[in-house]
Amino acid sequence: MEHKYAVIMAGGGGTRLWPVSRKERPKQLLPLLGQETLFQDTVNRLENLLPPERILVVTVEEQAREMRVQVPSIPEENYIIEPAPRGTASVVGLAAAVLQKRDPRAMMAVLTADHFIRNRDLFHYLLRAAFEVADNDFLVTLGITPTHASTGYGYIQQGERLDGTYNYPAYKVKSFREKPDEATAQKLLRSGDHSWNSGMFVWRVDVILAEIAKQMPELSQAVRKIAAAWDTPQQDEVLKENWQDLKVETVDYGIMEKAERVAVLPAGGLGWSDVGSWESLFEVILPDMNGNIATNAAVHLAHETNNTLVYGTSPERLVVTIGVDHLVIVDTEDILLVCSSDQTQKVKDVVEHLKKHRQEKYL
Amino acid sequence: MEHKYAVIMAGGGGTRLWPVSRKERPKQLLPLLGQETLFQDTVNRLENLLPPERILVVTVEEQAREMRVQVPSIPEENYIIEPAPRGTASVVGLAAAVLQKRDPRAMMAVLTADHFIRNRDLFHYLLRAAFEVADNDFLVTLGITPTHASTGYGYIQQGERLDGTYNYPAYKVKSFREKPDEATAQKLLRSGDHSWNSGMFVWRVDVILAEIAKQMPELSQAVRKIAAAWDTPQQDEVLKENWQDLKVETVDYGIMEKAERVAVLPAGGLGWSDVGSWESLFEVILPDMNGNIATNAAVHLAHETNNTLVYGTSPERLVVTIGVDHLVIVDTEDILLVCSSDQTQKVKDVVEHLKKHRQEKYL
Repeated sequence: MEHKYAVIMAGGGGTRLWPVSRKERPKQLLPLLGQETLFQDTVNRLENLLPPERILVVTVEEQAREMRVQVPSIPEENYIIEPAPRGTASVVGLAAAVLQKRDPRAMMAVLTADHFIRNRDLFHYLLRAAFEVADNDFLVTLGITPTHASTGYGYIQQGERLDGTYNYPAYKVKSFREKPDEATAQKLLRSGDHSWNSGMFVWRVDVILAEIAKQMPELSQAVRKIAAAWDTPQQDEVLKENWQDLKVETVDYGIMEKAERVAVLPAGGLGWSDVGSWESLFEVILPDMNGNIATNAAVHLAHETNNTLVYGTSPERLVVTIGVDHLVIVDTEDILLVCSSDQTQKVKDVVEHLKKHRQEKYL
Repeated sequence: MEHKYAVIMAGGGGTRLWPVSRKERPKQLLPLLGQETLFQDTVNRLENLLPPERILVVTVEEQAREMRVQVPSIPEENYIIEPAPRGTASVVGLAAAVLQKRDPRAMMAVLTADHFIRNRDLFHYLLRAAFEVADNDFLVTLGITPTHASTGYGYIQQGERLDGTYNYPAYKVKSFREKPDEATAQKLLRSGDHSWNSGMFVWRVDVILAEIAKQMPELSQAVRKIAAAWDTPQQDEVLKENWQDLKVETVDYGIMEKAERVAVLPAGGLGWSDVGSWESLFEVILPDMNGNIATNAAVHLAHETNNTLVYGTSPERLVVTIGVDHLVIVDTEDILLVCSSDQTQKVKDVVEHLKKHRQEKYL
């Protein structure tokens, strides 16, 4: 795995796991699924694949402080601090340019800090295969084989299978699709040739930078200037100067959709989740035989209770449920959430409402 | 209202409103329905009808301390402290004997400290009428006109209407019935001549003492001895001595069922509730237009939520519900209860379970 790097994107806020995820404590910095935070889990998942010196983290200053505490093994110079959020295309461009300066032959896997993957062995196997494909000048995306007709993810349609002696089936990408409506999602699920877009990518830095130069010339110029000053005393000043006017753009829309040499490796059985809602925890934590989950510090006494998740923050508190089904109960110090498990996406409505009414202490 | 007294029975524990009602904090001493506790409400309900000097309280020592704090207006000598619980028949016998010693022409209304009555004016009107009927040697029970086929109350069947110029319809009691099963309750509801047994009674002390002498001669002898020593230095000693061997018996079973001259005044529209479960609060507190109730210190933000009660104990905590219906949420300092509103009677199963496993701190 020489010349191979991981770039962990960790800038996001995210309100969908409110009230645990808060302005000051974003989702990736929380122990949602056990002892480790999602960020720690993302780093530890790379163990035996990449050493910490070859892991870069792109984030904002407020989060970097906590990240350095949670994962002290990553060297300080591997933190790239965004002065302000400018979208994933900018992040990818900057990370690629910085990496290229340090190692012209670098390849990078773009990962997110707030996703969960159960099957580490398969993940390693898949990443190795993706690096192989990427070495042949492809921009590689990792697709997730759909398990249901989700309207919450973008989809990738695969075309012909790539030639070559890859250890894992790889396909040319035929098209990217935005999040579909319910009926379309059903159709895509049945089609058999669509994967969810996991937001994980693998490529050589020279290949992605060439694509950026072609499709986003302004971004290309900016990251070239920034990279020239990187690891010099002018680094922060030049970064700030060239960052502020960048257009906010996603890597999918800004680069991938119009690129030509794009491949997808569809993965089933990865146990992947974007942990994008309280309901999603039912996919990544093994429930008891009644379908109940007690997680974090929850002490749950369940009486005639099924398919109910209790997230508790104090082992001193007893949570008793009687005669309920399909509930999510999130018991924090200052906020209690009780939500039907199929409506956890509406948590964001409540956060919007609190924002509108300036309830800062609850945000 | 000369010679007329109220005797408030306040000994019970009760686990049906757990986790708010606890071993150390029984239901009647809690502000379940607003600012006042049920005990305070019971006393205040008698305002403009009986002065505090003519209100007696029968309770146990542990509760008397808190009661004196909550209602300082009741004179110390009006507290009758049971050395140990011996059932309502014993309480009634003792109170009647003590009252007779102080005022041989006394009449008493037996009330409970942990019920709720919304319509105070009607309650006063009804009590005045009951005293009138009782003055003609009747043992009077206050019946509650059923609003649904409850299996949680005993029933009283009325017979012929009493002669006399009473200001309220009074009937001879035909029979008492224990708590019925579902089918019987339906039949009793349709019958039109059955009331719920509210546990409130009115009689002259000489009449009830004569009935006790006839039906429960041992109790009669005991309370006679106790009354002789009452308001003397020997009071406590004699009470203890004669109390300990008394048979535990209810006033209904021990006295009323076999008495001959028993009347019932059936009351509709009293807004009565025995506050016997969390669900019962929906009957006594006006919900908002979605059927939701936020009570005590609860701050409730309801999103697509109906028929849900939130009982909170801290105004600093925000309770958010999304997409739920028919729930009871009781949020105390150390216990959170989330219960389907039609299964709140199962709270007692949980209390039993905690008892069995010696979780003293949660009882």
